[in-house]
Amino acid sequence: MNARLEHLSDESVVEATASLLTALRAEPPLVQCITNAVVTGFTANVLLALGAAPAMVDITGEAGLFAGISSGLLVNLGTPTPEQRAASLEAANGARTAGTPWVLDPVAIGVLPVRTALAHELLALGPTVIRGNASEILALAGRSAGGRGVDALDGTEAAADAARELAARTGGAVAVSGPIDLIVDADAEIRIDNGDALLTRVTGGGCALGAVMAAFLGAARQTGHAPAVAAAAATIVYTIAAEDAAQGADGPGSFAVRLLDALAAVAPADLAARARVAVTAPVAA
Amino acid sequence: MNARLEHLSDESVVEATASLLTALRAEPPLVQCITNAVVTGFTANVLLALGAAPAMVDITGEAGLFAGISSGLLVNLGTPTPEQRAASLEAANGARTAGTPWVLDPVAIGVLPVRTALAHELLALGPTVIRGNASEILALAGRSAGGRGVDALDGTEAAADAARELAARTGGAVAVSGPIDLIVDADAEIRIDNGDALLTRVTGGGCALGAVMAAFLGAARQTGHAPAVAAAAATIVYTIAAEDAAQGADGPGSFAVRLLDALAAVAPADLAARARVAVTAPVAA
Amino acid sequence: MNARLEHLSDESVVEATASLLTALRAEPPLVQCITNAVVTGFTANVLLALGAAPAMVDITGEAGLFAGISSGLLVNLGTPTPEQRAASLEAANGARTAGTPWVLDPVAIGVLPVRTALAHELLALGPTVIRGNASEILALAGRSAGGRGVDALDGTEAAADAARELAARTGGAVAVSGPIDLIVDADAEIRIDNGDALLTRVTGGGCALGAVMAAFLGAARQTGHAPAVAAAAATIVYTIAAEDAAQGADGPGSFAVRLLDALAAVAPADLAARARVAVTAPVAA
Repeated sequence: MNARLEHLSDESVVEATASLLTALRAEPPLVQCITNAVVTGFTANVLLALGAAPAMVDITGEAGLFAGISSGLLVNLGTPTPEQRAASLEAANGARTAGTPWVLDPVAIGVLPVRTALAHELLALGPTVIRGNASEILALAGRSAGGRGVDALDGTEAAADAARELAARTGGAVAVSGPIDLIVDADAEIRIDNGDALLTRVTGGGCALGAVMAAFLGAARQTGHAPAVAAAAATIVYTIAAEDAAQGADGPGSFAVRLLDALAAVAPADLAARARVAVTAPVAA
Repeated sequence: MNARLEHLSDESVVEATASLLTALRAEPPLVQCITNAVVTGFTANVLLALGAAPAMVDITGEAGLFAGISSGLLVNLGTPTPEQRAASLEAANGARTAGTPWVLDPVAIGVLPVRTALAHELLALGPTVIRGNASEILALAGRSAGGRGVDALDGTEAAADAARELAARTGGAVAVSGPIDLIVDADAEIRIDNGDALLTRVTGGGCALGAVMAAFLGAARQTGHAPAVAAAAATIVYTIAAEDAAQGADGPGSFAVRLLDALAAVAPADLAARARVAVTAPVAA
Repeated sequence: MNARLEHLSDESVVEATASLLTALRAEPPLVQCITNAVVTGFTANVLLALGAAPAMVDITGEAGLFAGISSGLLVNLGTPTPEQRAASLEAANGARTAGTPWVLDPVAIGVLPVRTALAHELLALGPTVIRGNASEILALAGRSAGGRGVDALDGTEAAADAARELAARTGGAVAVSGPIDLIVDADAEIRIDNGDALLTRVTGGGCALGAVMAAFLGAARQTGHAPAVAAAAATIVYTIAAEDAAQGADGPGSFAVRLLDALAAVAPADLAARARVAVTAPVAA
């Protein structure tokens, strides 16, 4: 067990989450999003509700420059137009140069060739966090075809080895979304058992989480927490808000509205009693 | 009266609707949408609420391939960028080759030249269902200029002859949306008198119906129902959900939220008492 | 004090607002929007709720032609793809030729070079109304770098001189959005103290106001009111609806839904008692 894990426990992850949420609201991170046309509005609203400042700067000539001044960057491959593909590479390179943390969300890669090739190019640029469902993480690691869209066809544990392998390659963290969320890096594995199935009945339910991770990575630049902890904190806050939203929702429409209200309302002090987190030592990839 | 109409009646359309909705939820069709930037999020949420699996695969190099594995395809011309125009043709050709049923929604054609030319190219590829308001159907048949956007300026009966002519040309079905929805093919004419005027106060109210038709066409590949029956079933489910949503709505904002909730809640057993359907023998085009 | 200001008072602006809202609903203006990918759906829903007819015609080959038949045009630079940039210039030229009033919303200009260059090209085409937050108005006038996205970092009065200068250059009106909205032209300055801070927690809260201004400019072609009065009327109606929406909202999600309901419900007769308007003589730029 390495030095950092000595300091990482179920409790310390929850404490870090409260600290990061407090820091995020005190100094809203500027979150650059290059994301798909389906979820842009919802993603911006999730960030605004949480307390962050979204900026969808996704054209060439601006994306790279802006990645140098943003607090965190999301690159989501849901509907990658030619312009967005070029802007994604420009932004990832800009983030790499400036030290801006960034999240890669390889939506629906596997069967679809254009985004799959782009995802591998981006992977080589070293995303701070990779976030996807199990089939996407498997596909990115070259272990499975994936490709039936953004459905989570596989449980998150099915992608655990793939996630470990990708984390070893990038030196960053990998987050596998599903009923139990799994976040791995070289130092620890974090499992989070919060959330609600209604998240899968709203478009952007997963994509927006990638943006929230970019926001928490931005906040972590102030607090000094590791990317895996920031990704876990994002997941904890988002999925606890989802639980609040599901209470009293009449279906997926009202759930989505209530999720925004809940993200604005969730308080650092509420987290300790709600988070269901388990931290373990890393398993070799 | 031909053989199929012997088996098609008001009651049999409603029974088919219940069967199709049940089939759709048992095995969610993968619905590829190439649609406009205004309604992508709402369209995906409508499909998810209903129980289908949306996939907005709308770039060249992926759209044609994906049309070969999707259950149904929507091509909506609301904001046709150059990339989407090329992807639409690629997808329609892919659907044609693979036998994937597809819906053409010729949004706002008539005065606007780029989309009008594209609509005629797509028409030649034989859409399984064409869905539009009366002015769009008239414009596609070359009978009227149309072009004042997606408003239904004409009642659906004004486009009945145009719809019959287009159905004869494609060998498929044509759905004219309006206060009374009209669906025609070579074998029958179906009129549906459900819905609520609030659908015209929400963007995507009509566009999302095209996606729902693609979902029901996907389900009909399992049940064996004709495209016109699938289009009618989509209309019945969608407009009954709109009636539920209008009950208790405070305006167009809450209506749109409630529509998603209602689409998730509408049950096959509820349809018989609610659907206002009239089936008649076809009129020669 | 010039002739027009003799007829412009706090009361006359509010009376004009009621007349314009009545005219807008009696004959819905066709509002062409070239706007960013984040807010297209919300913007269309705002226009539909208000009673206007949105049309997102934003491709080359159609945008210029449509600007000649639309009632009003919005050009918003939030996510300016290459195609949208070309379409924006085509539309602005089409509007100029046809006499269609148009609104320029220079989102996040300043640091970001592509949109900043485009904003200056569009400025030279003489927008009827320029709408932005203080940092954007300062940046467009060349007085400040701006560029941290759409946050209003500066109070509206900080941009008053810049607004006066831009109004003098275009001969039109300039609207600076913020806690107190400021609208200036050569003849008057109008300050409006309505609204709610939740507007800043919803994406498109400001962008949609630009579209509402284009709708009121369309209505003003019937009533003969000046562009500054139309921009003020749009602001008054929109921000009073925001106050209604904030009442009983549980957060930004329910606020956005309630805003659409409130825009549909706001009545001309309600405005006089609610509007907080102050009209003053112009200050030399």
